[in-house]
Amino acid sequence: MTGTSPARPVSRRRLLTGGALAAGGALSGAAAVTALRADDADVRTARAEPVARIGAAVEPFHGPRQAGVATEAQAHAAFVAFTLRPGTDRAALGRMLRLLSDDAARLTQGRPALADTEPELGLLPARLTVTFGFGPGLYTAAGVDDRRPPSVADLPAFPVDRLQTRWSGGDLLLQICADDPLTVAHAQRVLVKDSRPFATVRWVQQGFRRAAGAEPGHTQRNLFGQLDGTANPRPGGPLDTAVWVPDGPDWLRDSTTLVVRRISMDMETWDLLGRTDRELAVGRRLDTGAPLTGTDEHDEPDFAAVGPTGLTVIPDFAHLTRARVGEDRLRILRRPYNYDGVPAADGTADSGLVFASYQADIARQFLPIQRRLAEQDLLNEWTTPIGSAVFAIPPGCPEGGWVGQQLLA
Amino acid sequence: MTGTSPARPVSRRRLLTGGALAAGGALSGAAAVTALRADDADVRTARAEPVARIGAAVEPFHGPRQAGVATEAQAHAAFVAFTLRPGTDRAALGRMLRLLSDDAARLTQGRPALADTEPELGLLPARLTVTFGFGPGLYTAAGVDDRRPPSVADLPAFPVDRLQTRWSGGDLLLQICADDPLTVAHAQRVLVKDSRPFATVRWVQQGFRRAAGAEPGHTQRNLFGQLDGTANPRPGGPLDTAVWVPDGPDWLRDSTTLVVRRISMDMETWDLLGRTDRELAVGRRLDTGAPLTGTDEHDEPDFAAVGPTGLTVIPDFAHLTRARVGEDRLRILRRPYNYDGVPAADGTADSGLVFASYQADIARQFLPIQRRLAEQDLLNEWTTPIGSAVFAIPPGCPEGGWVGQQLLA
Repeated sequence: MTGTSPARPVSRRRLLTGGALAAGGALSGAAAVTALRADDADVRTARAEPVARIGAAVEPFHGPRQAGVATEAQAHAAFVAFTLRPGTDRAALGRMLRLLSDDAARLTQGRPALADTEPELGLLPARLTVTFGFGPGLYTAAGVDDRRPPSVADLPAFPVDRLQTRWSGGDLLLQICADDPLTVAHAQRVLVKDSRPFATVRWVQQGFRRAAGAEPGHTQRNLFGQLDGTANPRPGGPLDTAVWVPDGPDWLRDSTTLVVRRISMDMETWDLLGRTDRELAVGRRLDTGAPLTGTDEHDEPDFAAVGPTGLTVIPDFAHLTRARVGEDRLRILRRPYNYDGVPAADGTADSGLVFASYQADIARQFLPIQRRLAEQDLLNEWTTPIGSAVFAIPPGCPEGGWVGQQLLA
Repeated sequence: MTGTSPARPVSRRRLLTGGALAAGGALSGAAAVTALRADDADVRTARAEPVARIGAAVEPFHGPRQAGVATEAQAHAAFVAFTLRPGTDRAALGRMLRLLSDDAARLTQGRPALADTEPELGLLPARLTVTFGFGPGLYTAAGVDDRRPPSVADLPAFPVDRLQTRWSGGDLLLQICADDPLTVAHAQRVLVKDSRPFATVRWVQQGFRRAAGAEPGHTQRNLFGQLDGTANPRPGGPLDTAVWVPDGPDWLRDSTTLVVRRISMDMETWDLLGRTDRELAVGRRLDTGAPLTGTDEHDEPDFAAVGPTGLTVIPDFAHLTRARVGEDRLRILRRPYNYDGVPAADGTADSGLVFASYQADIARQFLPIQRRLAEQDLLNEWTTPIGSAVFAIPPGCPEGGWVGQQLLA
């Protein structure tokens, strides 16, 4: 098995069958009329149908950098983290990543996966991207700890953290994003099924932003009503500087890193707060997103401006003040999604943010910001980190290749 | 308090404050800098912004019939069922429904609710509809059992049922639908908060269909890949005949009924089934949705057609055969949403359908179909009803009125 050959249907089908059998007892209820015909879908490809723009829009899968990072954020996301099964070594990881890369290459282009059991659900890509992340445990399992970017390691504990195991860690991450929720669900199903022989599902975090076309060109709002992402580095040079590793060995060049934090937002106490106090906590106007010293979302904040009371107009402990970064190379690219679970009987919301940030180096970029926020940020009063995970985002792959080949082949 | 007067801000704010206080201990963590200023949002209305078509699209709220029934199904839904608190009597129900109707009237038109704590999230209606449903318990609580449509009662037990309390029953339902998930989340938050003095949240079922604009004019697909809703009565006369109560007292005329069933779909065994067996179970082609005796989705099925083996082409126990209804007045309007929860560690999916059907009379229309399906339907092998609830959908209300006024005023 050479490192760069694409997934071959025959070995793939063998893997798939193995995966199905690994599911074990769940199959015992299969009806007498059913039969295992995993290859049916290969033979009868689903008929392609004419579709509108949102459904048919395609993001490239192959290339030097993975999609789903600089890609304008799609409306829906599923972050799926896996724990590798014992025995999933470097060779097995290679087989797994060939298989998943082949699935992603097809589904993102609006083609069903090989042996796709619901091929009709694979025809509307809706800008689907599948972004692969490698947790610290993957490097250990593959015996390549020396190739792990040093900043891809469990974050230090912060006093504000109330982390839960159920939302934390992971050896492998698949960030699945599309403008259509059915497309995300189908891609998740295909990728989880094909991962079964190699890994178990550790956690899944589903999230949403504004629907495609609902408010094009606007910064997204979170469930507190805040604009979220105003200070992101601009596409092009600033973003490239912040996000992509420019050089190094071929498993590092054009890579990046991802921090996923689940941030619970206490809607109950937030909703008791007046607008003025909210705006002081954030340092921005809620309606326009402008800094309290400006009138437009993208105005430069004036941290020295003093109000009639003699205090700075933007409080020293406002989120804006604490999170502020001047240089592009120290910025992070925030690509968060809202989550909204089922409220408790008394109406208490289960709302928050799947905070996701991309940066070339977690230690250089993310940690200083996070330390300042953990130390003093007025918003901490209403937000609680309940999950945390870090991943290297390896470079992309050319056509016929697979994600991770530079590291594992 | 007269029956038809609109909600008044003053009494409304009092109710809201009562509701906030009823939330009790949840508020104790409020920060020292916060203050209860529920009226801030009344004073500073959020700035309206220019938006694109999907976000700005509006469905009417006022009218003789409630929206969200004949309305072309939006991409996202939250079905929120409540249990009335002890003491929520006819007068309290009137106050509650005035308040919720006022919220719905504003939010559906792209205006923040009164004292909306996140007014910026209320500006993009994205075809938001809020549909009110009355469960059997609401009639009892209001002392108007004699006005309950007789078919609005717990369904008989079916042998296929594996009902769970957590997905069943309810005194009041709010069906919240929009083409944008943030709009649904915000509307849900507002409505749940304003319900607190009167009711507790019993269950919430969130669901999705294809994104707006992804595949316009197509019948939706469920997570089995099937087209779902082909046999719905066509808009206009057939739909009106099937859905709306044409006459009777003013709390019945222009009303309908809703059955919500949570149908778990066993992706694990379904995915072992070949396409031929799947199509025999359904009675339709998976790609086109055409009956096995036809070529187009909307072809009339020929149940008498016999294949080379001497058996009917469409099996007698196929879903299509068992669910088939000839007359419009016996049909149901299916308006289902997919759900896709978090898979288990071994990858077993938590997928299914929030089945929602509207019909003028549950006993005349829904029950005969459901009995035939429960008795013999090949699809039963892969589907399990795990939740069930029934609601009357009262008539709509004119501007200045409130949903339920014909029943309760």
